[in-house]
Amino acid sequence: MSDPVDLDVSDLHPAVDDPALRSMNFLNEIAQHYPDAISLAAGRPCEEFFDDDAPGRWLDRFRRHLAEDLGQDATQARRTLFQYGRTKGILHELVARNLALDEQISVDPDAVVVTVGCQEAMFLVLRALRAGPRDVLLAVSPTYVGLTGAARLLDFPVRPVAGGPAGLDLADLRAQLDRARAAGERPRACYVMPDFANPSGVSLSLADRRRLLDLADAEDLLLVEDNPYGLFPADDAGRRLPTLKALDTRRRVVYLGSFAKTVLPGARVGYVLADQRVRGSDGAVGFLADELAKIKSMVTVNTSPIAQAVIGGRLLEHGCSLVGANVRERAVYAGNLRRLVAGLAARFPPPSPVGWNVPRGGFFVVVTVPFPVDDALLTRSAREFGVLWTPMAHFYDDTAAAPALRLSVSAVTPGQIDEGLDRLAALLTDELRRRAAPAA
Amino acid sequence: MSDPVDLDVSDLHPAVDDPALRSMNFLNEIAQHYPDAISLAAGRPCEEFFDDDAPGRWLDRFRRHLAEDLGQDATQARRTLFQYGRTKGILHELVARNLALDEQISVDPDAVVVTVGCQEAMFLVLRALRAGPRDVLLAVSPTYVGLTGAARLLDFPVRPVAGGPAGLDLADLRAQLDRARAAGERPRACYVMPDFANPSGVSLSLADRRRLLDLADAEDLLLVEDNPYGLFPADDAGRRLPTLKALDTRRRVVYLGSFAKTVLPGARVGYVLADQRVRGSDGAVGFLADELAKIKSMVTVNTSPIAQAVIGGRLLEHGCSLVGANVRERAVYAGNLRRLVAGLAARFPPPSPVGWNVPRGGFFVVVTVPFPVDDALLTRSAREFGVLWTPMAHFYDDTAAAPALRLSVSAVTPGQIDEGLDRLAALLTDELRRRAAPAA
Repeated sequence: MSDPVDLDVSDLHPAVDDPALRSMNFLNEIAQHYPDAISLAAGRPCEEFFDDDAPGRWLDRFRRHLAEDLGQDATQARRTLFQYGRTKGILHELVARNLALDEQISVDPDAVVVTVGCQEAMFLVLRALRAGPRDVLLAVSPTYVGLTGAARLLDFPVRPVAGGPAGLDLADLRAQLDRARAAGERPRACYVMPDFANPSGVSLSLADRRRLLDLADAEDLLLVEDNPYGLFPADDAGRRLPTLKALDTRRRVVYLGSFAKTVLPGARVGYVLADQRVRGSDGAVGFLADELAKIKSMVTVNTSPIAQAVIGGRLLEHGCSLVGANVRERAVYAGNLRRLVAGLAARFPPPSPVGWNVPRGGFFVVVTVPFPVDDALLTRSAREFGVLWTPMAHFYDDTAAAPALRLSVSAVTPGQIDEGLDRLAALLTDELRRRAAPAA
Repeated sequence: MSDPVDLDVSDLHPAVDDPALRSMNFLNEIAQHYPDAISLAAGRPCEEFFDDDAPGRWLDRFRRHLAEDLGQDATQARRTLFQYGRTKGILHELVARNLALDEQISVDPDAVVVTVGCQEAMFLVLRALRAGPRDVLLAVSPTYVGLTGAARLLDFPVRPVAGGPAGLDLADLRAQLDRARAAGERPRACYVMPDFANPSGVSLSLADRRRLLDLADAEDLLLVEDNPYGLFPADDAGRRLPTLKALDTRRRVVYLGSFAKTVLPGARVGYVLADQRVRGSDGAVGFLADELAKIKSMVTVNTSPIAQAVIGGRLLEHGCSLVGANVRERAVYAGNLRRLVAGLAARFPPPSPVGWNVPRGGFFVVVTVPFPVDDALLTRSAREFGVLWTPMAHFYDDTAAAPALRLSVSAVTPGQIDEGLDRLAALLTDELRRRAAPAA
């Protein structure tokens, strides 16, 4: 009996066959298939500063914190690190200090849940908010594919809100709210990445942040703010805008934090700050964080305290400032972003049918072209031109191929940027020539 | 404005207010509230062998494996440990070697997904199998509360199957299957812990294991086998029965593995072995593991490679045998179990209204009494008698208080067992006296 089959994919939850989940697989596979291609696709952090000794050093630093700051004896410290532990995690005090220092966010540590990366934070929030079949989620489009995928797993419909050049079209947000409510739906929250968004690279202006908060308050809407890239402005002075959460005086914002780009991805540690006050069925009022923790207890129990300790040690080494801890990283990313934008300008002088935006920081630039950009073009790019990037179509919740592609600068050297752009220019020139030529 | 409220718990997914999720919270809270009580409640592993140096040593051992066995240079090894990585994890080869050695299970490493503890493994399997509103899950009752909780989060109805003295009543399983199908439901799988089950302590006989596999095949049912305690027989010779997966020749069993009890809980590493063959919508056939990995990519992305390396190093130190790695631990648990059972016999000589089972291994013993055992009795036990245990009611999917309680021997010393049993005997004697006395 060759190739016997036990199940059909249609026997499984429909999410596993959804474009949002297959997308991630396709992009990983093509990268594995063309390992020698230059990748302007990967949004991974740079590896230049990875240090073999760091995890051990950070673990030791965190142990010292347990002893000196928290007064734990050796037995207690071993229990903290090795045993089952607090569902909400053991970094809450350090996260609160970090947010106060770097973001001017004042937070009760008990409103923080430490999670298995920011992805779990997102998942817990979506699970909590999808209470019934009328509930829908709004998300700025184009959207991070991890958000769409998590929503799919929870059968949580996502209604796109136009991003546009300003990062979020507030009029469209209001229109989508009206449309959803007219259809009998209950919009629970709007997902937004206000700083150097993935994939658009765009940031919301300070005025739009305030308007968005006012709108959320007027419309009784939560905002789910995802901020993995905020620490990486390309500005020489490192100037940053306040996060939505820093401006939030009415507990409208659930804030998602990641240490993947600011410390390392391999710890898989992130967090959610959810200080919304929830009345329980017994009348007692607690933080939304506590409800998220109940969910977490049934998804991953708690985040590895060993992994948390690695991150905690890194925070402690820099007095809990990640701005301080990422001086070298910020310089790399800012330099790469400037080089990429300059490189595009040099290769596509005006007038050119190729355009791009100039983000003020982060990892991503969007290049627009006068033809649809699909997976077939990416495959040709990898095979014939040796350069990888991401079709923007992957970040839209429909199957139409958008005429744009995303470039990432985080995991390449300046030399790879130059060579990668040469290859991309060759591809785009070839594609433009083909399309201009009359059909044979 | 004091105590302002932003949300009502009824605005959130109903699972957060479900007894299955509140149960865990209550049990944690009472333990925190009475820190000086002797806990015969906690199912945590013993802390006696926790070693400050172990994580660093195991991490180094795993690095040596990356270099010597996998040929990774320093840059590649740093990428493996610190960067985003393979969704299915980096321990698959070692898990396969462990299963071959300790369980005589022969497995393709690609059918393994390394997860954030066994809880995530369970969650992924349930998410995959709950494909639509007709799907239901069967679970041997009493059931591990983490299974019930995960099912609640996914709106996956759980139909109890009588456990009974043999661990699983096969006639009732057949009856429940018939009943579910008659009601238009589609039973997807039956969850079972064949070895030293939590909470019952009971193990399935070899004959019942074979009958269960035959029934699963005849009924086209998957079995989800959870095996956190199998390595801890109380038998002096360490004799164990083959797992369902070891007996499974027809890919009926999805096997859940945990390193929480055999290495340490703080790494939060477990796995699922899912070698069922699934035909995709494109006609290609792959492992169920690959479908679970797609789900995982949207829940936690991947399991921390640093945490995986800690577990991997421990496996490598013992040639991938966890039987070999747990000689001391097995002696502790077996000794504690025998002491507890002997202690019960000494304190409740026949004829006694108090009974208990005598498990052949694991962490748990069930004590039966002639009155309902509820949270109020537990609270009185903690406050007045200084001993904690777990009402069996928490493991049943209805609100009736079962006349039984679970004792755990894993996280106590022999002295604490003796003293804890003295206190428990005082409580039960007092409760029996109260109930025998005419109402005042």
